[in-house]
Amino acid sequence: MKKAGVDYYMIPTADFHNSEYAADYFKEREYFCNFNGSNGTLVVSADAAGLWTDGRYWIQAADQLKGTGVRLYRMMEPGVPTIREFLLKNMTPGSRLGFDGRCITRREGAELAQLLAEKNIRTASGRDLGDPVWRDRPALPCHDLFVITDKTAGESFEEKLAKVRGTMKQRGAGYFVCSKLDDLMWLTNLRGNDVECNPVALCYGFFSQKEQHLFLQDAEVTAAVRKYCAAKKIELHPYDSFEAFLAAYSYKGAVLYDPDSVSYSLYLAMQKGMRRAAKTLGKDRIRFIEAGSPVEIMKAVKNPVEQKNVRSIYLEDSAVVCRFLYWLCNEADIAQMTEYDAAEKLDGMRAEVKDFIELSFPTIAAYGPNAAMMHYEPTKEKSSALDRSAMLLVDSGGTYMRGTTDITRTTALGPVTDEMKKAYTLTAAGNLALLNVSWMDGCTGRNLDILAREPLWNIGSDYKCGTGHGIGYILNVHEGPQNIRWRFSKGADEVPVVPGMILSDEPGVYKDGKFGIRIETILMAQEKCRTADGQFFCFETLTYVPLDRDLLDPRYLSSREIEWVNEYHRQTLEKITPLVDRKVGAWLKKQCAPIR
Amino acid sequence: MKKAGVDYYMIPTADFHNSEYAADYFKEREYFCNFNGSNGTLVVSADAAGLWTDGRYWIQAADQLKGTGVRLYRMMEPGVPTIREFLLKNMTPGSRLGFDGRCITRREGAELAQLLAEKNIRTASGRDLGDPVWRDRPALPCHDLFVITDKTAGESFEEKLAKVRGTMKQRGAGYFVCSKLDDLMWLTNLRGNDVECNPVALCYGFFSQKEQHLFLQDAEVTAAVRKYCAAKKIELHPYDSFEAFLAAYSYKGAVLYDPDSVSYSLYLAMQKGMRRAAKTLGKDRIRFIEAGSPVEIMKAVKNPVEQKNVRSIYLEDSAVVCRFLYWLCNEADIAQMTEYDAAEKLDGMRAEVKDFIELSFPTIAAYGPNAAMMHYEPTKEKSSALDRSAMLLVDSGGTYMRGTTDITRTTALGPVTDEMKKAYTLTAAGNLALLNVSWMDGCTGRNLDILAREPLWNIGSDYKCGTGHGIGYILNVHEGPQNIRWRFSKGADEVPVVPGMILSDEPGVYKDGKFGIRIETILMAQEKCRTADGQFFCFETLTYVPLDRDLLDPRYLSSREIEWVNEYHRQTLEKITPLVDRKVGAWLKKQCAPIR
Repeated sequence: MKKAGVDYYMIPTADFHNSEYAADYFKEREYFCNFNGSNGTLVVSADAAGLWTDGRYWIQAADQLKGTGVRLYRMMEPGVPTIREFLLKNMTPGSRLGFDGRCITRREGAELAQLLAEKNIRTASGRDLGDPVWRDRPALPCHDLFVITDKTAGESFEEKLAKVRGTMKQRGAGYFVCSKLDDLMWLTNLRGNDVECNPVALCYGFFSQKEQHLFLQDAEVTAAVRKYCAAKKIELHPYDSFEAFLAAYSYKGAVLYDPDSVSYSLYLAMQKGMRRAAKTLGKDRIRFIEAGSPVEIMKAVKNPVEQKNVRSIYLEDSAVVCRFLYWLCNEADIAQMTEYDAAEKLDGMRAEVKDFIELSFPTIAAYGPNAAMMHYEPTKEKSSALDRSAMLLVDSGGTYMRGTTDITRTTALGPVTDEMKKAYTLTAAGNLALLNVSWMDGCTGRNLDILAREPLWNIGSDYKCGTGHGIGYILNVHEGPQNIRWRFSKGADEVPVVPGMILSDEPGVYKDGKFGIRIETILMAQEKCRTADGQFFCFETLTYVPLDRDLLDPRYLSSREIEWVNEYHRQTLEKITPLVDRKVGAWLKKQCAPIR
Repeated sequence: MKKAGVDYYMIPTADFHNSEYAADYFKEREYFCNFNGSNGTLVVSADAAGLWTDGRYWIQAADQLKGTGVRLYRMMEPGVPTIREFLLKNMTPGSRLGFDGRCITRREGAELAQLLAEKNIRTASGRDLGDPVWRDRPALPCHDLFVITDKTAGESFEEKLAKVRGTMKQRGAGYFVCSKLDDLMWLTNLRGNDVECNPVALCYGFFSQKEQHLFLQDAEVTAAVRKYCAAKKIELHPYDSFEAFLAAYSYKGAVLYDPDSVSYSLYLAMQKGMRRAAKTLGKDRIRFIEAGSPVEIMKAVKNPVEQKNVRSIYLEDSAVVCRFLYWLCNEADIAQMTEYDAAEKLDGMRAEVKDFIELSFPTIAAYGPNAAMMHYEPTKEKSSALDRSAMLLVDSGGTYMRGTTDITRTTALGPVTDEMKKAYTLTAAGNLALLNVSWMDGCTGRNLDILAREPLWNIGSDYKCGTGHGIGYILNVHEGPQNIRWRFSKGADEVPVVPGMILSDEPGVYKDGKFGIRIETILMAQEKCRTADGQFFCFETLTYVPLDRDLLDPRYLSSREIEWVNEYHRQTLEKITPLVDRKVGAWLKKQCAPIR
C-alpha cells in the first residue's frame, strides 16, 4: 500500500463478473481476515482494519474474526457507519483509496469515486494489492468448455444473436458489452465449469452488428469448442486481454452495457477507447447506453424446446426425491446418520440420472433447529446427527443436460407438535395458493407474493426472504429478472410474469432455535385464456413430490385447499409412479391418498 | 386569439385546484364543444378544433361533438397523436400556444412549455380567452363556510399546523404553499360547499413557521368563520389575490409545494417573488422543494376521534341502506319506478339521518345493462324503468358531521341466471378475502389488490378499475395517497397501508350490454398483532349491509369463504338490528341467516 501510494485499501467479495458464487481464486477477503460469508468487505489502513457484513453473518463473522485484529462493522445496525461514511470520515483530503476495479461494478465504483472526489480523495482501481502477499493463492479456475447442441438449446447462437442485435438497434446501440457469465453462456450455447454449481466459464463478450468476440482462457477451449466457434464466426481472444481490447477498439457508435454487472475497470477501459473515438466522431455518437442486459429477458422466457426438456427433467428429478424420501422414511438407519450422510445419499441418487452434469447448489439437509437457519449447509466436518425426534428439511437440485432443478421438502422423522403441524399446513396452503393462481397479463411478482404468504401472515408468521426466484436452463439455479417478492422499493423495476418464465414457490416458517419448514415447488408460467376482459396466465407445475402426510393437518385447511392438496397428489401419483419401482410406487400411493 | 397573439388555444378540464369535480364555472370546454365527460381537453386553432378524451368517453364524445365541427381524438388509440405530439407537429416555430395557467398543474404546464420551447414555440398562460366569449358563464361558486369543532375534528388547527410545520422543518422548507382544497379544509377544520358533493370551499393557503394565510372569497366568510379565524390567528385575504401575494412576498427560505396540484400560474407567481428574493439571499436558500403535500398523509391516517365518529356513522349509514333494500324488495312499486326514483328514495332516507350534510356523490342506481357502465348516473331526464327481470346496482354515500360514507350493493329484482349468480358470488368472495386479509407492516395497495381480484381472474373476468380508494373525514369521498390497485408503473410511489387509513373494497363484474355487479364495503386498517416476525395489520369493517341471498351461490364458495359470509352476516345482524324497526329487523334476520 505504501509503495502504491494507497492510504486505505478495500477488498470486496465479487469476482470479475459480479457472480453470485465466487471461485476460491477470488476469496481474497477471506484469506486476509478469515471471514468466509457470502457478503463482506474488508477495509484496511496503515493501522486498522474493519470488516462490514450483514445481519445473516454477524455471529459467524465475530467468531471468525477473533484474534485477527479486524473490527466487525454490523451493516444496517443503528449507529454503525456504512463503508462510505467510514471512508469519508477517516480519510483526509489528498489521500488515496485503493481497490481492484475488476471486483466492483461500474455503478458502485463510480459512485464511490465521485463521493470521495468531493472531499478531494482519489481512488486507484488498477491493482490487486493483495495478490503479491497471497503466496498460495489458488489458480484462476480453468475447466473445459462444452457445447450445447442447437437441438438441446432450442435456438442457435445465430438466432439468439439476431434477437440481441434487434434490441441493440432499437436502443440505438452499435455495441453490446457483456460480462455476465450466464448471459454469455445462454447466448453462445456454450457451458463451462469455472464456478461451483454454476455451469459457466469465465468469459467476456463484445458484439456489434457484424462482429462477435469472446474472451476465454485458452486452456478452456477444447478442440470441439474451437471448431464450434469457428463455424459460428465467433472470434476468440485470451480472457485477460479484454480490458486492453476495450481500450484499443475503434468505436463507431454507442455502447450498450449493464452498469450493475460490468466492472469499474472495464468501464474505465471502454471510456478510454470511446474518448478517443469521440474526438473525431462526436460525443453524441460515441456514448454509453446504460441498461439491463438484453439477453436477460430472452434467457428468462424459456423457448419451446427448453420448456419440453425442463418438463421432462423435473419429473425425473422429482422421482429421485421420491425415492430418497421413501428410503429416508423406510430403509435408512436414521440413528447412525448425520445430515451430511443424508445429503450424500440424495446427491448419489441424483448423479445416476441420465444427463446429470452437477448439483445446482450444495445440498442443504438441515435437521431440527438447524433448519431455522435459511443458509445452513452441512459439511463432512460439521453436520448434526439425525434421530427420530424432529423434522428434516432438504433443499437440493441438479443441473442436467435437460435443465436445472431446485426443490425443497420438509419431512417429519419423528413425532411432531401441533405447532409444527399448523406451521407446515399453512406453508403448504400458501405454496398451493400460488401454484393455483390465475393472473392478468401485466402482473409482476409483487402482485403474486401475498398469495403464498397470507396463510402465514394470518397467524403472525413471516419468512424473511422472497417467495420465489427464476431458474436457468442448464444454467444457474438463481436468475432474473423475474422474482416473487413483496417489499416496495421506490424506483425499482418490476418485470411481468409471462409464459415461459420459471419461478420457485417456496414459503416457509423459521422458528429460531426450534425448527424450520420450507416447501419449494417449481412452476412455469403458461397461457390460460383470453377473454373479453383480457389475457390471463397461470402456472404449470414442474415439481411433483408429495407433501408430508404426518405434517398436514386438514383442520387448518379450507375445502378449496384440501382440493388443491388432493389434486396435487393425484397428479403426482399419475406422473411419478411410472418412473419409480414397485416399492416406491406403493409408498407413493399411500402418500398421495386423498385427505379429508 | 388573434388579438392576444395566440395561434393555438387549449382548454383543459380542471379548476384552479386540480379538483376531482369542477364547478359549472369551470366547464368552459363543455361550453365550447358540448362534451361534458370528466376528462377532455379542447384545442382550437384559426381553422380547426380537436377534443382529446379517454376510452371511457369515446361513444359519448362522438355523440356530443356531432355538428360542432370539433374532431374527436381518441386518447391511447394506436395512431392517434397525443396533444403534445399534435401541437409539436402542427405548430410552427415562432407561433404561440395559449392556455389558462390556473387550470393546469405546474408539472403539466412546465413540461409542455419546455417541450414547445425546443421548437421555438412560446406559451401564454396568463389569460382565459374563453371568458369574454362565454356571456352566460355561471358565477364562481360561493357558499358559506362553516367550522368543525375541535371536538368533532379530534385535533385543533394549531395541533395539525404544528405537525405540518414539523414536516416543513424536516424538509428544510421555510414556506408551504397549498392549493388542494381538501388538504386545506382538513388542516383548518373549516368546510365549505363550493364543489358538488365535496364539502370544500375554493381557497388557497400559505404557511411559514410563524404566519398562516388563507385566501377565501369574502362573501363565503360568515361571522362565525371570521371569529374562528381571528381566534386561530389565521390571516384572511381575498381568494383572487393569491397570485399577487405570491409574486410580492419577501421570501426568506425554501418553498415546499406539490407540483401535481399547484397550478402553473401560481408557480410562475412564486417564481417571480423568489427570483427577486434570491438576488439578495442566494439561490441555495430561496429554492423550490417539490414534494407531495405534507397534509395528505396526516389526513389519510384518521385520528382516534375521527375513527370513533366514522365507526358510528357507518353503522347508521348501513342501517339506511338496509331500510332502503327492505323497502325495495318488499314495499316498492317496482313496476312504476325508474332508477332515478330509487335513487331519490334512498337520498331522502339518508337526508333524515342526524348530522347529514349532503350526498358524498350523486347516487348511482343502475338497472340491468346500465350497471355495466361504471360511471352511469341516472338523472331526472334520463333514467331507465325498473321491473322484476334484472339486477339493480346502487352506489351511494353521504357526508355527515361524523364522516363521509360510500357503499355499493347489487340486488336481484327478479329471476337471475347462473352466470349472474356465479359472477356475484365470486365478487363477494374477492370482497371478503380482502376484508379478512392480514398483512405485514410495509405492504401497499399493490400487494393487497390480488386478493379481491383472484376469484374473478380465475374465471377470466376483470374489472377495469382499482379495487379501492381512500375516503375523507367529513370530506371528499375519494382521497389519497393510499389506494388498492395492481398495475405497475415504474417510478410511481406507493404508500403502505397503515392503521387509521380508510379504504374501499369494491370488486365487480361488468358485462357490456348485459349486467353489472359491484359489492363495495368500506374498511379501516387496524393493528392486529406484533410477533417475533414483525408487526401485522388487518382491516376493521365499517359497512354492514347484507349480501344478496338470491345471488349468493355456495357452490362457488370454499368452506372458508362460506365462514366469511356467515361471520359478516352475523356481525351485520348484531350491529344493525338495534338501529332498524321490527319489520326491517325481521327482514335482516332472514338475509343474515347462515348459508351452507
